[in-house]
Amino acid sequence: MTVQIESLDFELPQLTAAYARGALTPSTVVEHILQEIASRGADGVWISVVSREDALSRARQLEALSKSEREALSLWGIPFSVKDCIDTIGLPTTSGCPVFSYTPAKNNLAVERLLAAGAILIGKTNMDQFATGLVGVRSPYGVARNPFDAAYIPGGSSSGAAVSVAAGLVSFALATDCGGSGRVPAAFNNVVGLKPTRGLISGIGTVSACRSIETLSIFALTVGDAQAAFEVARAYDEDDPFSRPDALEAVRPLPARFNFGVPGARWLDFFGNSDAAALFANAVERLESFGGRKVEVDYTPFTEINDLLFKGPWLAERYGALQHFVDERPDALFPITRDILVGGRSISGAEVYAAQQRLNILKRQVAKLWNEIDILAVPTTGTIYRIDEVEADPITLNARIGTYTNFVNLADLSAVAVPSGFLPNGLPQGITLIAPAFADRHAASIGDRFHRASGLPFGARHLRAARPNHVNQREENLT
Amino acid sequence: MTVQIESLDFELPQLTAAYARGALTPSTVVEHILQEIASRGADGVWISVVSREDALSRARQLEALSKSEREALSLWGIPFSVKDCIDTIGLPTTSGCPVFSYTPAKNNLAVERLLAAGAILIGKTNMDQFATGLVGVRSPYGVARNPFDAAYIPGGSSSGAAVSVAAGLVSFALATDCGGSGRVPAAFNNVVGLKPTRGLISGIGTVSACRSIETLSIFALTVGDAQAAFEVARAYDEDDPFSRPDALEAVRPLPARFNFGVPGARWLDFFGNSDAAALFANAVERLESFGGRKVEVDYTPFTEINDLLFKGPWLAERYGALQHFVDERPDALFPITRDILVGGRSISGAEVYAAQQRLNILKRQVAKLWNEIDILAVPTTGTIYRIDEVEADPITLNARIGTYTNFVNLADLSAVAVPSGFLPNGLPQGITLIAPAFADRHAASIGDRFHRASGLPFGARHLRAARPNHVNQREENLT
Repeated sequence: MTVQIESLDFELPQLTAAYARGALTPSTVVEHILQEIASRGADGVWISVVSREDALSRARQLEALSKSEREALSLWGIPFSVKDCIDTIGLPTTSGCPVFSYTPAKNNLAVERLLAAGAILIGKTNMDQFATGLVGVRSPYGVARNPFDAAYIPGGSSSGAAVSVAAGLVSFALATDCGGSGRVPAAFNNVVGLKPTRGLISGIGTVSACRSIETLSIFALTVGDAQAAFEVARAYDEDDPFSRPDALEAVRPLPARFNFGVPGARWLDFFGNSDAAALFANAVERLESFGGRKVEVDYTPFTEINDLLFKGPWLAERYGALQHFVDERPDALFPITRDILVGGRSISGAEVYAAQQRLNILKRQVAKLWNEIDILAVPTTGTIYRIDEVEADPITLNARIGTYTNFVNLADLSAVAVPSGFLPNGLPQGITLIAPAFADRHAASIGDRFHRASGLPFGARHLRAARPNHVNQREENLT
Repeated sequence: MTVQIESLDFELPQLTAAYARGALTPSTVVEHILQEIASRGADGVWISVVSREDALSRARQLEALSKSEREALSLWGIPFSVKDCIDTIGLPTTSGCPVFSYTPAKNNLAVERLLAAGAILIGKTNMDQFATGLVGVRSPYGVARNPFDAAYIPGGSSSGAAVSVAAGLVSFALATDCGGSGRVPAAFNNVVGLKPTRGLISGIGTVSACRSIETLSIFALTVGDAQAAFEVARAYDEDDPFSRPDALEAVRPLPARFNFGVPGARWLDFFGNSDAAALFANAVERLESFGGRKVEVDYTPFTEINDLLFKGPWLAERYGALQHFVDERPDALFPITRDILVGGRSISGAEVYAAQQRLNILKRQVAKLWNEIDILAVPTTGTIYRIDEVEADPITLNARIGTYTNFVNLADLSAVAVPSGFLPNGLPQGITLIAPAFADRHAASIGDRFHRASGLPFGARHLRAARPNHVNQREENLT
């Protein structure tokens, strides 16, 4: 059976329906994906891909199940990718560093649960090395090609993950998020990035960046799809020191009227990109169109928390997680990643305690905001940069990109990044809806409504008919 | 009116009743206490005492209230002391270090609340400098004289606080507890030490030792008295980064049958003191006598948490809290205190994160214990030492004393230390009942029952008739 690219619709309800009516089988989907990956060539998206033999064997295994067995599997036949800092049996884990590579004996628990629900692993995705960066250009495996314009960064650190979804190669991607790695690439690839409350998805069997504040995350074409994968992936893990008992709030019906916070004008910075500013203004109007009332909030505590993350003591946790490797094989690190990690070596224990104490006070200031607002809406990023711009000024531009994302995990909040539209240059931007810990479903509910109201196409597949694929030659220079 | 020492009963119900029937007034009580303090001479208990003029003025102010105003004040006329790391207006705060001394502009919130409830401040009590130590001999202000035998240590760091209660100079003492400072001196002075769940009493306006894990605590003659003071002192403080909303469990009726854990035999160490071992065996029998069933528990996680506290990264927090003073005036520190604090300087941020991660796993092991037991009962200390023994081997003996206390705050538990009896040498020992966070009242309920069942005298006042006061010459050598 030959499947036309145009007919393949990777949203979960559509793909499941196509399976149900016999229009597709997992085998045909797998064949299509592997052909597509092959035809794209060196697109920088993958660090490793499951062999055709293994993928088809997995598809046939799923096809051999009885109808009732299939129906019990909520992700039966759904293709997904896994960021290469997360362990999957059968493929190496590199975390974007070839010398660091190891072959895991066990699946990460979320991977295990997704597979047990019938999902099909396609491969491991490229990333900023050791999840350090928001740009997606800090990898010896090249730059995952931004499907909208290969001259632009894909965003990171979960670059390949977001592109794998946007390009229609998988239905969803399992990734990670510490300072925005699960949200920034969503904005730059016109997909949804669900960043759950910390501690709900096991981090055991992952290469830790900043374990106390990072979380696994999901990219998908729609909020509903991301939630479906999240509901399967999440589980308390006694072995994970940061796992938390499930205290998720139930879905709340979207209220007729709700207050959404936005950063007050003096903090709302698009770094000179007036088109991005206009897109955010449109996004605010869209939120207002279905009952939202805008409340400008003091962004000072968020700014201070951002500084704690990327200029401060949490760098010591990043360094500590990889201490032996960083100390013994500094030559094996991407230069900028090495500089950042080594910077954590000289941070004292006393500084860490002082910062944690300060963070407690800042979190208390943030907590008060929820008396005034139901949700916080921020631009996911203020703008997007070209690869050459980031190469010329890697630290400053990376920090700017995190303006609206860095604080979220430190402040113990949940978030969902959703597409908000396209800049005149064709690059997508997004907004992020932020809620308290355990109010994930509330953020998702408003995010889903917002995304539906936008009428935007999903991912980048609509570009196929409109224009030829860009050939990304840049990442080959970097490989 | 002349008050005989023997007639003064400082338990709250007795003192309140004596006030109610007109047998005593706050002024007579204050006069008696100040005379008593004067007559004791250099007993090492106090760093500063309220002037006679101020104390009597305060007493008269309380006496000027109407009957209904008095009755609204639950601690009307109750004398108390405050450990000298806690701010009280009108007296310097030294934290056991004269050069560090400052004059606070505000009362600590607990002090403020106790005063507002009618309590009378008598003075500020001696302590191991910067609350670093469990021995009570690390102060330039001398050693608070152990009322049972001046050759023995009073326990620390809240040494003066516990002696002030045992000696009948106040009804209760406000102190602090990080690794056992609110429990060890209770055991060595035959008084009760209530160590609440962390975050329930404000730490603002105190000299921090290890802010993230320390708490204010209460010494009193009975569990009921300690609870009465605690109920007044506790309050959420938005300015305290470690303050927690009140989530205290309600008092549970003491069950007819309950399981109490004790450290398994291989961990139960009395450091060669077989008399102390026999006292603990008696204590176990007493718990069994009113419905308890003994369950031997694995003490491994507690031992590991102990090591994290006093050999590990939390020393960096202790150093960081006093960094500027320690770096600039090392000469002003008690030698052993200086060595300990300076030791925290070289601990790295990476070590702190690693320890916090490990602690999370250990806390999870501890949490499982509560499926098997209702309460954990440990000897408060394995034994007691003479001052000369501690001086000869200060680090090892201090660490031994913390065997059953160090882990409690790190593991986020609540505890109450109660007297359990006397060794043949006349020195008291105690047990500590330990419960999960916010189950403070459950621990207190069993502790109160245990204490009542013991039939022990309260504090040291019964010694007055039996034998003359020891004169403590040792602390004069140390001053």
